[in-house]
Amino acid sequence: MTQTSPRRTVRPPGRHRLSPLFEPTSVALVGASDRNGWSGLVHSALSLYGFGGTVYYVNPRGGTAHDQPLATSLSALPEVPDLVFVMVPAPAVLGVLEEAARLGTPAAEILGSGFAEVGGEGVALQNRVARLAAESGMAVLGPNNLGFANVTSRIGLTPTVGTGPLPAGRIAMISQSGNLAGQISTLARTFDVGLSLIASTGNEVDVTVGDIVDYLVEDEPTAAIGVFAETLRRPDEFRAACERAHRAGKPVIVLKAGRSEAAARSALAHTGALVGDDAVVDAALASAGVIRVDTLEDLLATADVFTRIGPVHGRRLGVVSISGGAGDIAGDLAEPLDLELPALAPATVRALQEVLPDYGTAQNPLDMTGAVVAQQGLFGDGLRILATDPGIDAVLAITEADHLARTLDDGMLPGLLDAAAGSPVPALLTSTTIHAFGERTIALRRERDMPAVGWGIDRTLAALARLADHAERPLRAPAPDTAPVALDSSAAGTWSEARSRLLLAGAGVPVVPAQLVTDTVSVEPGSYALKIVSADLPHKSDVGGVRLDVPAADVPAAVADMLRAVAAARPAARLDGVLVSPMRRGGVELIVGVVRDAEWGPVLAIGMGGVWTEVLGDVQRVALPADDRAIERALRRLRCFPLLDGARGTDPIDLADLVRTIAAIADLAVRLGPRLAALEVNPLRAAADGIEALDALVVWND
Amino acid sequence: MTQTSPRRTVRPPGRHRLSPLFEPTSVALVGASDRNGWSGLVHSALSLYGFGGTVYYVNPRGGTAHDQPLATSLSALPEVPDLVFVMVPAPAVLGVLEEAARLGTPAAEILGSGFAEVGGEGVALQNRVARLAAESGMAVLGPNNLGFANVTSRIGLTPTVGTGPLPAGRIAMISQSGNLAGQISTLARTFDVGLSLIASTGNEVDVTVGDIVDYLVEDEPTAAIGVFAETLRRPDEFRAACERAHRAGKPVIVLKAGRSEAAARSALAHTGALVGDDAVVDAALASAGVIRVDTLEDLLATADVFTRIGPVHGRRLGVVSISGGAGDIAGDLAEPLDLELPALAPATVRALQEVLPDYGTAQNPLDMTGAVVAQQGLFGDGLRILATDPGIDAVLAITEADHLARTLDDGMLPGLLDAAAGSPVPALLTSTTIHAFGERTIALRRERDMPAVGWGIDRTLAALARLADHAERPLRAPAPDTAPVALDSSAAGTWSEARSRLLLAGAGVPVVPAQLVTDTVSVEPGSYALKIVSADLPHKSDVGGVRLDVPAADVPAAVADMLRAVAAARPAARLDGVLVSPMRRGGVELIVGVVRDAEWGPVLAIGMGGVWTEVLGDVQRVALPADDRAIERALRRLRCFPLLDGARGTDPIDLADLVRTIAAIADLAVRLGPRLAALEVNPLRAAADGIEALDALVVWND
Repeated sequence: MTQTSPRRTVRPPGRHRLSPLFEPTSVALVGASDRNGWSGLVHSALSLYGFGGTVYYVNPRGGTAHDQPLATSLSALPEVPDLVFVMVPAPAVLGVLEEAARLGTPAAEILGSGFAEVGGEGVALQNRVARLAAESGMAVLGPNNLGFANVTSRIGLTPTVGTGPLPAGRIAMISQSGNLAGQISTLARTFDVGLSLIASTGNEVDVTVGDIVDYLVEDEPTAAIGVFAETLRRPDEFRAACERAHRAGKPVIVLKAGRSEAAARSALAHTGALVGDDAVVDAALASAGVIRVDTLEDLLATADVFTRIGPVHGRRLGVVSISGGAGDIAGDLAEPLDLELPALAPATVRALQEVLPDYGTAQNPLDMTGAVVAQQGLFGDGLRILATDPGIDAVLAITEADHLARTLDDGMLPGLLDAAAGSPVPALLTSTTIHAFGERTIALRRERDMPAVGWGIDRTLAALARLADHAERPLRAPAPDTAPVALDSSAAGTWSEARSRLLLAGAGVPVVPAQLVTDTVSVEPGSYALKIVSADLPHKSDVGGVRLDVPAADVPAAVADMLRAVAAARPAARLDGVLVSPMRRGGVELIVGVVRDAEWGPVLAIGMGGVWTEVLGDVQRVALPADDRAIERALRRLRCFPLLDGARGTDPIDLADLVRTIAAIADLAVRLGPRLAALEVNPLRAAADGIEALDALVVWND
Repeated sequence: MTQTSPRRTVRPPGRHRLSPLFEPTSVALVGASDRNGWSGLVHSALSLYGFGGTVYYVNPRGGTAHDQPLATSLSALPEVPDLVFVMVPAPAVLGVLEEAARLGTPAAEILGSGFAEVGGEGVALQNRVARLAAESGMAVLGPNNLGFANVTSRIGLTPTVGTGPLPAGRIAMISQSGNLAGQISTLARTFDVGLSLIASTGNEVDVTVGDIVDYLVEDEPTAAIGVFAETLRRPDEFRAACERAHRAGKPVIVLKAGRSEAAARSALAHTGALVGDDAVVDAALASAGVIRVDTLEDLLATADVFTRIGPVHGRRLGVVSISGGAGDIAGDLAEPLDLELPALAPATVRALQEVLPDYGTAQNPLDMTGAVVAQQGLFGDGLRILATDPGIDAVLAITEADHLARTLDDGMLPGLLDAAAGSPVPALLTSTTIHAFGERTIALRRERDMPAVGWGIDRTLAALARLADHAERPLRAPAPDTAPVALDSSAAGTWSEARSRLLLAGAGVPVVPAQLVTDTVSVEPGSYALKIVSADLPHKSDVGGVRLDVPAADVPAAVADMLRAVAAARPAARLDGVLVSPMRRGGVELIVGVVRDAEWGPVLAIGMGGVWTEVLGDVQRVALPADDRAIERALRRLRCFPLLDGARGTDPIDLADLVRTIAAIADLAVRLGPRLAALEVNPLRAAADGIEALDALVVWND
């Protein structure tokens, strides 16, 4: 029997590669069957969401499923569908995809498991699917996931449809875990958080979370993007997509599991993917404008708050409530989040005194008192007046959970909403404690786009703090203009201090003066530091290769002693001589290092030197390239920063000079390119009398 | 018209003073009226809760209210009620209470506002009520509160009854704020947290939260106590009541607002009560066995987890889930809480391998994999096997929210519950994210006392960490046996270093050797520290009164120089001489100080010395008296502890000796009694070669 070839739609130019996947006008459900539970659920999801396109039902057995006629193959369909949704057992998947690819299908979803996650044969099978996807250009989502729902486009292609379509809104959620995508959906329903898209990516044989972020940059309904991931594949692409989203005004909020040792152990085992050093990932994500969170609740709450009030520029918060206790709880919770509840301006105090009862106090946090019972508009008055204070960047009204459930004409709500709508700064309403909205409040929220969330004081404040961080955090800088450093074959192994010093000095980094001495030496009066120079001895002090505080007169003998002693201790080491430098005293000793991560690129680390880095973990990291602003911000976030800033009457250090010096080290590391493994200045002495590298180390990749 | 005097019930001996308040067999509602909204609500609460005692309705107008006949006064009642519940306007309250007191009523509640919180006349009125309560011995709750509900005794005496009685259970909640008591009630309903009692205390004219904690120690249904407070009145009594509760196995969990500057500003304004230095309050509460939280959600969640699984002895957690992602989130969240997810014992691994599918991994956190879909008992198997691991102190099963809503015969729940019931260590089920139980789950929870909570991973882990802290934290020690130090009139002002040293040395604290020099001096070879001695100059270095590293030969001249220079700089200061001590090098310099708080008594502070205390805030505080265990625990919790413990190859310090020395300082401070304002050793040098006070300061209250 001959068969007509299916019609094929040509993708309009400029359309995203994932558009056919997430906005299909035609879908083929392959493996559709009344006996396949998932098939029934997906069929039902399509209908519950009200899919307006064409659905084809495919099963080689023919007959019907879900009261629809079954085509026996994709080739038998009258057109090439946008999306082939594969629900057949793992061993049959490749055949279906090969047929889809042959027909030129632009997108496919593989719902089933039985691939890399089960190991052995599953890995081989997944690799074949990956190759097919790469060769055909077909966008393949999954396997081992639970599909997706494009909520605003009313396309539900998932077996986890639950009680019906999710609330539609402006947040896209992407989860590598299908299970957690389900949990996110439940949370979104409970707290009435509107979604534009929710997708799970499973094993990511082709389409990664990064690809979907990239797609969402241009997706009109989406205003904020949430991601749950354990492994960020193709980190450069992920980071670039996040940066594009950021520049488009869409924050990307990421819960990346695997910070802890226990989680890393687990992730290694069940995905087979390496979990990167979390501190590096953290710096890399921050430099791409990503907001990082630790719980699914915070993932959704942060996106929710953003879509309700937009970006938050500043950390000075006005808080108004009708319970002194709630305001105090907010004040206590704000402090460790670095949110400030500033004292009010005199004009604000006067304006508040006019509306408050005599026994009320015009202050921040503001308690509108029991007088709101008789005069319900008072609560809104408080919000309105606080919002005009010139020292306040955002206002939070804390309401009793039930107050949100009044009508729009009655109670305290209308006054609050009017005040929020007229506010010159972001104004948000939250419940005192976590609160699942009732049907009535949900209806009200949809009637009027209320800037109100039910996350309770703590999660709401944390979301505000994250958004304020996000607004003030610099992105990764463009690559420096200066040319890469030309490297010859000597850029290998570990360089000696003497050689590392020269490299730094050549790049404009101030380095303590030193002479390399192999024999006799004469120095000016003063006190000296002596260090053995040998590429074979990175740990100089372990072999007696460091002496400090040597008076000038003793230097010649000390040099000779050191050369003799080290040669005796390590006869195999090639000794270049002894580096003699003037002793420096006082100031603060920092460690400044750059490590190049194979996946995430160069990351600058700045910490308090010596024992403190290890004991206190007082280190800040910045992905490179970074501009001076990013470096200064990292310095200011060190716990020891007050020591650089003249704490305890010490002479303050020239911060601009310090930033310049660190920037020079960072630029050098970037210009050294991927052959550099690590570049470390330890210590970088920062004192009122100047900034100087006292020691340096360069390590190359072999 | 003559009137028969009401019968008076005599309180049985041994009954708590607050029993008639919280367990009345008869209640008089004074101010009952159909036109008084609160009267209707309280009447309805009594009936909704199913109060089994006698209710009298009192209003001088007579007639009826709520279809009940009204007595015109308390004196007209046939008996003296246990509790007079006052709902009349503020100016009429005193008259009602005077009558109640005259009749010998044991308890009263004042529902209305218009007292100290409105200032002026209100304060005077409240003071008169306070006097009346004190003189009559009547227990008076309120005013400016919202009553209480004794849930297990079915006594609802509050206008905030909401949709009906609260879920009955084993947690008592006390809130100074009536509004927040309402929020706590809503939360308890939402997360099906059973309460024994909920009371708001308002202005606390007589009955304080501490009194109620004291009452609850013997209250049989109550297993855990939660408190929201802004001001802890009569701190000694509060602390003593908490200690009694702790010894009775009932944890007291406290959300005390007012940590932050903003909250303190607010609390000052709206209660007129001083908010203590939060660090002192924190130490004092910890030493009374109190668990402190920062949110209402954590207040309820911690109590909820405790009543479900009891005390948690140890921080090593086994985590089992059916989503690798959820386990990883738990691993990440556990780490900063100091909860450990240890690697499993070989026998545990073997047992797990027998039940897991081939592609599963026997590890912690444990993912039971998709195999649970086909074999639902597998989830319970995982919990059961983890619980027998000898290295695990508690087990947490993370379920999809919906799994909790299955029946007891079906799905994964029965296996989980059986495994939890048979677990040798506490075993708890929690939802992945915060989850309000549906009716079906609530019915199941009541059918079988399920160790399951809906707080989500983060709050549940935080509750487990708090309970583990609580189990390991030492209480305040008994007062030392040694006699108080007898003090004469010279115990005033600030003592000089020389005099402070003698006091410490006399108490067995090792002090660096020193000679007080006024003229000539001869010292052995070495290097010396010179410090001016004058009670008038507490800041020695500001006036050139400190020189370090002085070679022996230079000491005589340096002493003379210093005496001359200081005398010139501060001619009015009385100089006792110069203290000459050998220079000490190396080791760690600590600050050890005791400050006596007027309300909370002596508190010991231990921190890293020098610039670090200020810059890093690395300080631990312990309320005194404290035993060696409490002092050692504080030392171990310093961030700088690794430096004391031989980090970076330094010689470790004799920890027992250090603890003994600090204990000697603390004991001395306690024995010096309330005239001591502060005793500070700064620095206390701790080195491998010994522990020694290098400087000391004693300040007395005037």
